[in-house]
Amino acid sequence: MIRVTIYNEFVHERTEEKVREVYPDGIHMALKSFLEDGDVVVDTVTLDTVNELTEEKLKDTDVLVWWGHMAHNKVPDEVAEHVKEAVQRGMGAIFLHSGHESKPFKKLMGTPCNLTWREDGDYERVWTVNPAHPIAQGIGRFIYLEHEETYGEPFGIPEPDETVFIGGYEGGEVFRSGVCYRRGCGRIFYFQPGHESFPTYKNADVQRVIKNAVCWAAPIYRVENLNCPHVQKP
Amino acid sequence: MIRVTIYNEFVHERTEEKVREVYPDGIHMALKSFLEDGDVVVDTVTLDTVNELTEEKLKDTDVLVWWGHMAHNKVPDEVAEHVKEAVQRGMGAIFLHSGHESKPFKKLMGTPCNLTWREDGDYERVWTVNPAHPIAQGIGRFIYLEHEETYGEPFGIPEPDETVFIGGYEGGEVFRSGVCYRRGCGRIFYFQPGHESFPTYKNADVQRVIKNAVCWAAPIYRVENLNCPHVQKP
Amino acid sequence: MIRVTIYNEFVHERTEEKVREVYPDGIHMALKSFLEDGDVVVDTVTLDTVNELTEEKLKDTDVLVWWGHMAHNKVPDEVAEHVKEAVQRGMGAIFLHSGHESKPFKKLMGTPCNLTWREDGDYERVWTVNPAHPIAQGIGRFIYLEHEETYGEPFGIPEPDETVFIGGYEGGEVFRSGVCYRRGCGRIFYFQPGHESFPTYKNADVQRVIKNAVCWAAPIYRVENLNCPHVQKP
Amino acid sequence: MIRVTIYNEFVHERTEEKVREVYPDGIHMALKSFLEDGDVVVDTVTLDTVNELTEEKLKDTDVLVWWGHMAHNKVPDEVAEHVKEAVQRGMGAIFLHSGHESKPFKKLMGTPCNLTWREDGDYERVWTVNPAHPIAQGIGRFIYLEHEETYGEPFGIPEPDETVFIGGYEGGEVFRSGVCYRRGCGRIFYFQPGHESFPTYKNADVQRVIKNAVCWAAPIYRVENLNCPHVQKP
Repeated sequence: MIRVTIYNEFVHERTEEKVREVYPDGIHMALKSFLEDGDVVVDTVTLDTVNELTEEKLKDTDVLVWWGHMAHNKVPDEVAEHVKEAVQRGMGAIFLHSGHESKPFKKLMGTPCNLTWREDGDYERVWTVNPAHPIAQGIGRFIYLEHEETYGEPFGIPEPDETVFIGGYEGGEVFRSGVCYRRGCGRIFYFQPGHESFPTYKNADVQRVIKNAVCWAAPIYRVENLNCPHVQKP
Repeated sequence: MIRVTIYNEFVHERTEEKVREVYPDGIHMALKSFLEDGDVVVDTVTLDTVNELTEEKLKDTDVLVWWGHMAHNKVPDEVAEHVKEAVQRGMGAIFLHSGHESKPFKKLMGTPCNLTWREDGDYERVWTVNPAHPIAQGIGRFIYLEHEETYGEPFGIPEPDETVFIGGYEGGEVFRSGVCYRRGCGRIFYFQPGHESFPTYKNADVQRVIKNAVCWAAPIYRVENLNCPHVQKP
Repeated sequence: MIRVTIYNEFVHERTEEKVREVYPDGIHMALKSFLEDGDVVVDTVTLDTVNELTEEKLKDTDVLVWWGHMAHNKVPDEVAEHVKEAVQRGMGAIFLHSGHESKPFKKLMGTPCNLTWREDGDYERVWTVNPAHPIAQGIGRFIYLEHEETYGEPFGIPEPDETVFIGGYEGGEVFRSGVCYRRGCGRIFYFQPGHESFPTYKNADVQRVIKNAVCWAAPIYRVENLNCPHVQKP
Repeated sequence: MIRVTIYNEFVHERTEEKVREVYPDGIHMALKSFLEDGDVVVDTVTLDTVNELTEEKLKDTDVLVWWGHMAHNKVPDEVAEHVKEAVQRGMGAIFLHSGHESKPFKKLMGTPCNLTWREDGDYERVWTVNPAHPIAQGIGRFIYLEHEETYGEPFGIPEPDETVFIGGYEGGEVFRSGVCYRRGCGRIFYFQPGHESFPTYKNADVQRVIKNAVCWAAPIYRVENLNCPHVQKP
């Protein structure tokens, strides 16, 4: 069984009619609806309850899924630090879309995580670059999204451990849309699709990718201690 | 001083009127014309003279630039093996466009180096992914090529040591267009633009990239021996 | 079920009394004895029967385990090419000890795969560098081997995708003893311990690593075709 | 000309007689003495003056060299943040020895950066793993240090972009002693030798490595802005 915690700031859906129409119960509930099954249990947290993301809660979380955008700065530094350390101890983490600028993702990457963007409702094709990767199983040559926010390079991330997807947009832009990292004992997947005003998380391929990523990121090993132990000569 | 040897199979330019119009003296001479200056001396080899690529010649070459397409299989295995070993000893190598399927590139990658392709004269934008890389110096956000052959993912290469450029095409395709590897003591750069029927190598930005790559790939260290030396306890 | 094929050249064990004493039935049978269980079926091939490693046989192999030393050059080029392509299509491969110089390993790496060596019966400690890696599960801080051949850096491999173990020897030498690569759709693990004259493959930790590696390398995805398909504008 | 700023906390040298004997003017002055020449100008900062490491100062620094140990936590978070961002903008950074636990190094890695350690005055051999790397130029098979603090794996760093040196110790321990990263536009080198109570920085090979690293890390490109620019359709 995989214990997933979804964090969604849940601001857009309550302040913008257009977004509420797409995700009336919030992006977190949309994610939960397809992630939860016999093998995966899902809990959700929003900005209002973000302090529930305690060290204890994260110890009981196998994979944390993160969606945030407008309110990155309202996430307490302490929570971001807990998330970072939980990943280093083995928890998996999946950062979606504008989560590239979230505090915990930036802490885990060590890079600016910046990008260029425009919002013109262009189509996106998310191309499978590594078809043998566990996260790409069941996905064809590309995922077609009729409308997505356009993210563009340079994307200020470290050279990926594994590049799984690269997106291409109507305007000819490209973006490393699906990338994997290991940080300490934890695995991280960043996945770009998911602008709040489009029904991206209702796309079956996108759901498949996120579900695959949850399975891939679930820990097989966790450590308690991140300190530097003094040892004896062997 | 950097000693460059350009290999161009020089078949298209002699058999297709359309290509001859673009490169009347051959792609190798077009490359030579912008590479050669006070600091760079250039020699050229074609399929007709490919056996000039001896071990000796490669020892006297700092960077080998390779363009091939129709006649990959006519390059003797022995030459490909010499090139592979010269790179392992420290020689730099730049593989252009359809050079992804050349014998030496495949030997150096260990992967199929396959890709998808179509030839519809679409535009390409080659996006700078790593603006701080030596090979990207002087290049803006992207290089615009009015017409290029469309190469698509999955590109069967190892996860790059450094990704410098990613191309985006009119049809929404993407391609890792500029990637770096180290193999033994040598540095390798693959650069995708350069279809024979378009004047890509006359584009100032493309020229800049290739010139930068020559400087980046020039060796600072070479070894003679690739064997496994027996050593004493230190 | 995982279908493993073990290739062992099986020369030392028949020509050197000292080695026969350690592995009377050959290294392949020693490996088979601990790999085979309800979930893993094992077939073996030796230099005498190396031509059994046909394309067909490799298609029916999930993970190939390779031990060779004296007779690398007697393995036909065609067999080495088949192994390389089978890995690119998705087959897993584990190269043991002196397999670093085998034809298929070198073809897959693209590097010289050279190293320094001495044979003084020193102890080795194989240190776990990445305790969260699937291949390191069940292994403590290090594996202690009372006697091993000393392999030393520089080891002429590409920068590893993942470094799992680094060995340290009595003389202060170090060696990247457990490293992972992806080549095409296949996964590769190189593991240094296993000199023929010491009972390394009877060590429970070494067995555990190899068993873990078999599970890690077993394919979840395979492709038929390594060519470059012509595609249509999407 | 390369503008180097050396930060040394300068605590051990003022509080421990044994350390003062080795570095009477402080580690920073020892580093400065061999780094400074016609092409390199050096400024120094200590914990007492750490607030001099302003954004402005770091903009005027090409490469920052960092030595800290006891007083990591006394470095203000704001300074650590400035250093992180300066690297992301292009400044080079070299972290020495116990600098693995400094705030800016941990911020740039995103990992715990933990390790095991013991202090028994063992010898260390620092092995050259990548002899073609610019930082290894002029160094032989290994650097011999009669006494060093023993650092051991697992070292909690991301998989290195480039591994240049691996250390081996008297007790058979191993440690990734020289590793390179790129973060944003900046280059980072971590180098393990340099325990305060041994005259490591007086070793000519160690000096050569640090000097090489300064040259390697000096920026060729810097950016002002780390934000996410809104762009137009091209």
